[in-house]
Amino acid sequence: MAEPIAFYFDFSSPYSYLASQKIDALAENFGREVHWRPVLLGAIFKHFGTVPVTRQPGMHDYSLRDFARSARFLDVPFRMPMRFPVATQAAARAYYWLHERDSDLARRFAGSVFHEYFAAGHEISEPAAVLHIAAMLGVDPTALSSAIEDPAVKEKLRLETDAAIAKGIFGAPWIVVDGEAFWGADRLPQVEKWLETGGF
Amino acid sequence: MAEPIAFYFDFSSPYSYLASQKIDALAENFGREVHWRPVLLGAIFKHFGTVPVTRQPGMHDYSLRDFARSARFLDVPFRMPMRFPVATQAAARAYYWLHERDSDLARRFAGSVFHEYFAAGHEISEPAAVLHIAAMLGVDPTALSSAIEDPAVKEKLRLETDAAIAKGIFGAPWIVVDGEAFWGADRLPQVEKWLETGGF
Repeated sequence: MAEPIAFYFDFSSPYSYLASQKIDALAENFGREVHWRPVLLGAIFKHFGTVPVTRQPGMHDYSLRDFARSARFLDVPFRMPMRFPVATQAAARAYYWLHERDSDLARRFAGSVFHEYFAAGHEISEPAAVLHIAAMLGVDPTALSSAIEDPAVKEKLRLETDAAIAKGIFGAPWIVVDGEAFWGADRLPQVEKWLETGGF
Repeated sequence: MAEPIAFYFDFSSPYSYLASQKIDALAENFGREVHWRPVLLGAIFKHFGTVPVTRQPGMHDYSLRDFARSARFLDVPFRMPMRFPVATQAAARAYYWLHERDSDLARRFAGSVFHEYFAAGHEISEPAAVLHIAAMLGVDPTALSSAIEDPAVKEKLRLETDAAIAKGIFGAPWIVVDGEAFWGADRLPQVEKWLETGGF
């Protein structure tokens, strides 16, 4: 089987959410798997000295309009969260902890976190919210609660984010197909063509 | 006939060039005209305190790769100019001066400027280069040379750029369809759907 597609994202990134709704089906059409890899955009922005698009001068209103319009264009349910952006450490740590145990469960958990935040408009930042989302998938809240505070799990997320930065990943979503990097949900048509043609 | 589509661009903007290669045919499919309006991205960036994508931290190499890949994706000839970005005052002033005389000629002139810079890899910044491009379309170099230095023509470009800033236009290409604004060549599929559906 061909190399999996790497999908770097932050749970608080609207364009990451949009891409998350399409990437698995897209990959499957070409017999590819997707490695979902949450990273911390806050740390990435801090490293590069950049700011989120909604905080770039003059871009706030346009960005909000573009999030919603792009969601409608892609036929993805979307509702701009009241609190935005939010810290996603707890959700990302939970993802990696679950991933070591059951990658399919971790994938469903990631989908649920995105859905809760960007479709249902619920809180995903606090550990309690993360435990609640995981509990709906049958994950024991006590074990997950410890995991979120486990230094080894914290370190795993830190290493993943640092590795992304070392690769030059400056934003999300960031999709890598056979070494070729694509930034943004709006590059999905190029990702598709790349998979179809093996590079163009 | 429905309202024309407004197409704001800078002659030195790669994504503007890509959009310029598609916008007329796209509009024509829906019985629309396109009003081409060069503006000065330098003044826009200065106003908003932003920087071109190639100068944003960490984004230089990715941007260059994305320009060329997006051109291939859209099947548009592209060659990254040696000098980039460049001042486009002379070309933009020439455009508006020609536009008052012959809007079709102005449109062909704009196409030639983009082609010279992004397909042929030639200089377009100096007045001499602009005069040369216009001369190939039969424009008298002496008259155009005076026009480029005419205070009224300079003022016209200043007013166009100021009006764009006042409308909140923070980047290019910027396409407006019936009051709805789209930023970036990668929004052309959304522009098309908007024209097709009257809004979504």
